Amino acid sequence: MAAVPPGAPFPPSATLADIGEFPLIDALTALFDTAEHVLVGPGDDAAVLRIRNGHLVVSTDLMVEGRHFRRDWVPAEDVGARAAAQNLSDINAMGGTATSVTLGIAAPADLPVAWVLDFARGFAAECAKVGAVVVGGDVTRSETLVLAVTVMGGCTVSPVLRSGAQPGDVVALCGRQGWAAGGLAVLGRGFRSPRVLVEAYRRADPPYAAGQVAADAGATAMIDVSDGLVADAGHIATASGVVIDIRSDAFEIPEPLHAIGSALGADPMQFILGGGDDHPLLASFGSAADVPKGWTVIGSVRAADDDGARVLVDGAPYAGPAGWTHF
Amino acid sequence: MAAVPPGAPFPPSATLADIGEFPLIDALTALFDTAEHVLVGPGDDAAVLRIRNGHLVVSTDLMVEGRHFRRDWVPAEDVGARAAAQNLSDINAMGGTATSVTLGIAAPADLPVAWVLDFARGFAAECAKVGAVVVGGDVTRSETLVLAVTVMGGCTVSPVLRSGAQPGDVVALCGRQGWAAGGLAVLGRGFRSPRVLVEAYRRADPPYAAGQVAADAGATAMIDVSDGLVADAGHIATASGVVIDIRSDAFEIPEPLHAIGSALGADPMQFILGGGDDHPLLASFGSAADVPKGWTVIGSVRAADDDGARVLVDGAPYAGPAGWTHF
Repeated sequence: MAAVPPGAPFPPSATLADIGEFPLIDALTALFDTAEHVLVGPGDDAAVLRIRNGHLVVSTDLMVEGRHFRRDWVPAEDVGARAAAQNLSDINAMGGTATSVTLGIAAPADLPVAWVLDFARGFAAECAKVGAVVVGGDVTRSETLVLAVTVMGGCTVSPVLRSGAQPGDVVALCGRQGWAAGGLAVLGRGFRSPRVLVEAYRRADPPYAAGQVAADAGATAMIDVSDGLVADAGHIATASGVVIDIRSDAFEIPEPLHAIGSALGADPMQFILGGGDDHPLLASFGSAADVPKGWTVIGSVRAADDDGARVLVDGAPYAGPAGWTHF
Repeated sequence: MAAVPPGAPFPPSATLADIGEFPLIDALTALFDTAEHVLVGPGDDAAVLRIRNGHLVVSTDLMVEGRHFRRDWVPAEDVGARAAAQNLSDINAMGGTATSVTLGIAAPADLPVAWVLDFARGFAAECAKVGAVVVGGDVTRSETLVLAVTVMGGCTVSPVLRSGAQPGDVVALCGRQGWAAGGLAVLGRGFRSPRVLVEAYRRADPPYAAGQVAADAGATAMIDVSDGLVADAGHIATASGVVIDIRSDAFEIPEPLHAIGSALGADPMQFILGGGDDHPLLASFGSAADVPKGWTVIGSVRAADDDGARVLVDGAPYAGPAGWTHF
């Protein structure tokens, strides 16, 4: 990732309106790496990519200022890293590997250019963690800052869907869960510590290598936890037509969540069960013996009964906040 | 494209906030066709597509309410058709064929569900013109309505870039040009006629089959005209390092553009030279004999001189409005 050279043509206070569309595109493009599979990168009507195998895995996500992030809570580079992470994580959750990303930026004219370039640096750096590069994009003006990301990748084995969980499977989790929700609760009360939670909210740390490992290990269903653990387990339960029972004693509650639970008068399990934004992977496996290293068994799958497909916690419906809704 | 069944669960006045995210996604997904190459469509973490050849062509675009369209000027189905057309046209301009599209909708909570479904119908119908289908998407809340489209496709021959125009080439155009700009000018004055221009603005009619034909015929450079004819010719000139000279007498000015030129006191050529949104193709060919049927030769390419790569009209710099700027 190249830095904008010292003496770049934009004064620190420059806004998007000051510099205009094409200089902005040039500055962004200069930040982005290329890769061997990119035959034509940004700058033409479309990018042209060489695809190594016959399957293309594609996901798209929008992030809206004020709804998915706040510029006063999260530095631009971290917003960029998060915008990339949540999309890369979707490819991970299929058992695939992301290679190529497009980035759309709809932004107010008075947005500082420096914010956009810092955002792009964080975005590109997160993509580089998995070897993906930005191959195209669009910038335009909007009263509301909206970031639109589409990520493409391949998979070497069959993709792991949400619909394959079977009664008798175990359910396992890989990656930290509840930390981002804890950080969000801290920021929401106007605090800045515990710092480790705030950092977890500002920057996700998805287990990018784990998806392909789980696919190779025979995961029967998989999802990344972005809406909330119970909510996303519910997506597997519904798609598979099963009941997923989560055992709350399977979780070791990390100390910072205990601390903010006490400080805010909240059960720390609610961050784990209801929180999103950490992007761990949740998957089902035929038996505990199939579960790869680094994963924790947190529950089991059983057949849907008269009450239908759903998620239980310790055998009972979960009464806490289930997760995020978009409208 | 399936219609939402009569007795669909949404009352005519329902807003996005009334129905929520997942029912909206279900209703949208029900509208979209599938296709043989879509192994996994909307509803999982990512779509999985079978790709027929080793090259993937990708383009992405944003459309923002108030900037790229107005809901009071253009019916929802036409906004959808336009959102699809401008992206499909980018694949066309590479000489490729679009197969798969993702659709992101960031929308105010009080937007009527009916608007979104009509938009999606128009979007899907336009995609169907080239055999492309919607394979994934995202919906979320935003104060500003922003539509984010990414389109993917393949090409059977080498993609045609902007950078291949050579001195001595002829420059040719395929598809109507200036009509949409005329329609926009009409609407901007509060009029509704000539209706044929207003319709052209509301719904583009790109020559989708022409891109691949031009590629097969050996087009040396190609672009779709979305920003304006002089502006987009300028993108070819800059990328190729050449001068493009457009002959204004090559254009037969259509009668409705004469009519509104008279009514508004404007030179009708300004709609042709400066207008965008019609999405004709502009390409260079090694000789007039290479130009396929249905294309009109409108100029020529010569070597850049001391004044650099640029566009001329009748041998002189063009003084009119050159096209669209995004900030």
